[in-house]
Amino acid sequence: MKRVAVVGVGQTKFGEHWNSSLRDLSTEAGALALKDAGVEGSSIQALYIGNMSAGKFVSQEHLSSLAADQSGLLPIPATRCEAACASSALAFREAYMSILSGQYDIVVAAGAEKMTDIRGETASAALMGAADQEWESAIGLTFVGLYALLTRAHMQSFGTTREQLALVSVNNHKNGALNEKAQFPFEVSVEQVLKSPMIADPLRLLDCSPITDGASAVVLASEEAARKFEKPVWIAGSGQASDALALHDRQSLTEMLATKAAAKIAYGQAGLSPGEIDVAEVHDCFSINEILAIEDLGFCEKGKGGSFVEKGNIARDREMPINATGGLKSIGHPVGATGVRQIADLVRQLRGECGKLQINGAKTGLALNIGGSGATAVVHILKAE
Amino acid sequence: MKRVAVVGVGQTKFGEHWNSSLRDLSTEAGALALKDAGVEGSSIQALYIGNMSAGKFVSQEHLSSLAADQSGLLPIPATRCEAACASSALAFREAYMSILSGQYDIVVAAGAEKMTDIRGETASAALMGAADQEWESAIGLTFVGLYALLTRAHMQSFGTTREQLALVSVNNHKNGALNEKAQFPFEVSVEQVLKSPMIADPLRLLDCSPITDGASAVVLASEEAARKFEKPVWIAGSGQASDALALHDRQSLTEMLATKAAAKIAYGQAGLSPGEIDVAEVHDCFSINEILAIEDLGFCEKGKGGSFVEKGNIARDREMPINATGGLKSIGHPVGATGVRQIADLVRQLRGECGKLQINGAKTGLALNIGGSGATAVVHILKAE
Repeated sequence: MKRVAVVGVGQTKFGEHWNSSLRDLSTEAGALALKDAGVEGSSIQALYIGNMSAGKFVSQEHLSSLAADQSGLLPIPATRCEAACASSALAFREAYMSILSGQYDIVVAAGAEKMTDIRGETASAALMGAADQEWESAIGLTFVGLYALLTRAHMQSFGTTREQLALVSVNNHKNGALNEKAQFPFEVSVEQVLKSPMIADPLRLLDCSPITDGASAVVLASEEAARKFEKPVWIAGSGQASDALALHDRQSLTEMLATKAAAKIAYGQAGLSPGEIDVAEVHDCFSINEILAIEDLGFCEKGKGGSFVEKGNIARDREMPINATGGLKSIGHPVGATGVRQIADLVRQLRGECGKLQINGAKTGLALNIGGSGATAVVHILKAE
Repeated sequence: MKRVAVVGVGQTKFGEHWNSSLRDLSTEAGALALKDAGVEGSSIQALYIGNMSAGKFVSQEHLSSLAADQSGLLPIPATRCEAACASSALAFREAYMSILSGQYDIVVAAGAEKMTDIRGETASAALMGAADQEWESAIGLTFVGLYALLTRAHMQSFGTTREQLALVSVNNHKNGALNEKAQFPFEVSVEQVLKSPMIADPLRLLDCSPITDGASAVVLASEEAARKFEKPVWIAGSGQASDALALHDRQSLTEMLATKAAAKIAYGQAGLSPGEIDVAEVHDCFSINEILAIEDLGFCEKGKGGSFVEKGNIARDREMPINATGGLKSIGHPVGATGVRQIADLVRQLRGECGKLQINGAKTGLALNIGGSGATAVVHILKAE
C-alpha cells in the first residue's frame, strides 16, 4: 500500500476567542499549516474539515465550502465530517483515504469549533447532540453525567480511586502549563482537583475538559508528493470503529469497545504493539476517559489504568508519556478541532520540535479521538520514518 | 484505476412521516438497499451517511454511529458527511473513494433527514445554515429569497420567462405523478404554477421543492466484490467542487461555477460528453436551479436553458430526459437524503427497472446534487456496463 505523510501542521490558540469567528479561526489554522508545510494554497487539491455542531453553536452548517472560500482555495472539493468530538479525526482519516484512492496528492485536514457564541441554549445542551437524543438527552442527562456513570462503573469493578482520577488532570495540566496554545496553562494539585466543585458525582470541575474555541489543520501528502517536503511524518495506521450511542445499549460500561476495535486495526496496519508507542495523545474529555484509553489501547491490563496513572507512568519522562502537551483538559477541547490538534501535536513530537515538552527520541506516536461517550473511536499511529 | 459499482439501492417513501423517527427512516432505507443487493449486514465494512442538520431538526448529531447501531452493523466505521443539501452525494463520493483507497470492499452510502419534527424555529430558518450566516442569514434572507435573486439575474441576462420556469415544475410533477415514493405524486399545469402563492418574487409555491422526511441508501462494491452481484451499475465519474457561500462573493450569478468544475472532472473521468448522457437527475430545489443545471452541465448553451425546457427536450421521451422520476419538486427534498436518492433512481433506470418511468435503452446517467445556493456541487456519472 502506498504511504501518506503529514507535511505541515497548524493550530490557533485554544480558549475563548471573543474577537474571532468560526471562519476566522478555521482560516488561521489552515494558513499556519500551509506556512509550516511551505506550500502554496494553489497546491491544495481538497479540504476536509471536522466540526461537530456549528449549526447549533453559530447557526452555520456548510462550513466546508465556507472554509475553502475564506482560505482562498476555491473551487477545490471541501467536505465536512462529523462524529461529535471525533469529527476532525474523521476529517483526517477521510483525507488520508482520499490520497490513498489516487484522487489527490496534497490535501488539508482541519477541525474547528466556536463554542462560546451559542445563543438560546447552553453549550452543554448542544453537546448532548452527541448522545442518544431519544434515550439520553431527552431525560436530562449531560455529558459529564454520562461519564460519571462510566466512572462509577469503573470504580466499582476495579477499585479505581478518586485520587487516581485526579492524577490524570494533574499530569495533563503539568504538561499544558508549558504549552503556549493551551486554554488553561497552569498546574493543578490533587488537592485542588478533589476540592473543585462537584459537577456530576464523582466527577468534579477539574476532571472536566472545558468549553473552548479553536481550530487546527494539517497538510497531508502522497508518498511521491511528500518527497518535496522537509520532515514528513508518516501515517502508519488508521482505524475507526463504532459503538451504540446510548450507554444502555453497550455490551460493556468498563471498556470502550470501539477504541479496542479501532486500535486493533491501527496496530495491525502499523505492525506495532502498544509497548512500541513512544508518545500518545488520548481523549481526556473527562479524567475517566484517559484511564479507559490507557487500558483499551493496551498500555496496561484492563482495570489497572488507575494504578498505572498513580505510578506516574504517563509522565513525560516515563515509559508511556500520555497527553504530553496538555491533553483536552489543559489545552482545551473545541470539540470538532481536537482530533487534528492531537495529530498536529504528535507530528511536532516526532519532528522533535516540542521544546520543553519534547519526548526525547520519540519515533512513534498514537492518537485516540473519541466521539460522544464512546460511540465513535478513531486511532491513528504516526511514525517519524 | 479500479472500478466501483453500485449493487443495491433503497429509499423510504418521501413525505411527512409523523410515525417514523430519523433513526427509523435511516434503518428502513439501509435495510431496503441491503435486501435489493442481496447482501447480509455482516458483509458491510463501513457506512457513510449524509445529513444536513439533524442537530437543528431533531437535536441529534453523531448520526453515523446511531445509524450503524440501529442497523445492526456495529462496530463498523460510520461517518457523517455534510455539505447542506449535497450531503449525501458527498457520503456517496467518500464511500466510493474509500473503496478505491483499498480500505474496504463493500460499503453503504446513505442519506437521511427528518425535517418536520423541528421545534423552536422553522425548517426554513434551519435551512439557512446552508447559506452564509454572517452575510445572508443574519439579514433575514431565506433560501427561496436567494434563488429568487438568481432567477431575476437569469431572466434579465437571458430573457428567461416565468412560463419557462413553470414548465420545469410541470415536467417534474408529470414524472413524479407515477412515482410511488413521491411526496406529491400529482401533475400540475403551467396555469397552476403561475397562480400558486408568491413566495419570493418571481418564485411561487409550485417553483419550490417541499419540506420532507425521508432516507435513501445504496450499497457500493469494489470491482472484484461486484462480480458476485447481479446487475452492477458502475461509477464512471465523480467530481466535486466548491464556490463561495455568499452570493455577493460569486464571480457569476447566472451560472453555477461549482457545477461546471465538478462536471468537467466527472465527464473527463467517464470519457463522455454531455450529449452522451441518456438520463439526468438534477437538483431542482427551485425551478431556476434546473435551468441553471441544464446549462452548466452542457446540455445546451448558456442562457438557452429556458427555451430548452420550453421545447420539451427534458421530457421522458425526448433527447435529454431530466428528473425522469419526479425530481426534488415532486418526490420531495429531505435535504440530506436527496443526493443518494438521485443515485438510486439512476441505478434503477440503468437496470431498466423503472416501469412506467423507464427511459428506454438508458446506458449512462448523470446526477447533480447542489449544496446551498451553489457553494457545493457534486456530479456523478453512472454506466450500465
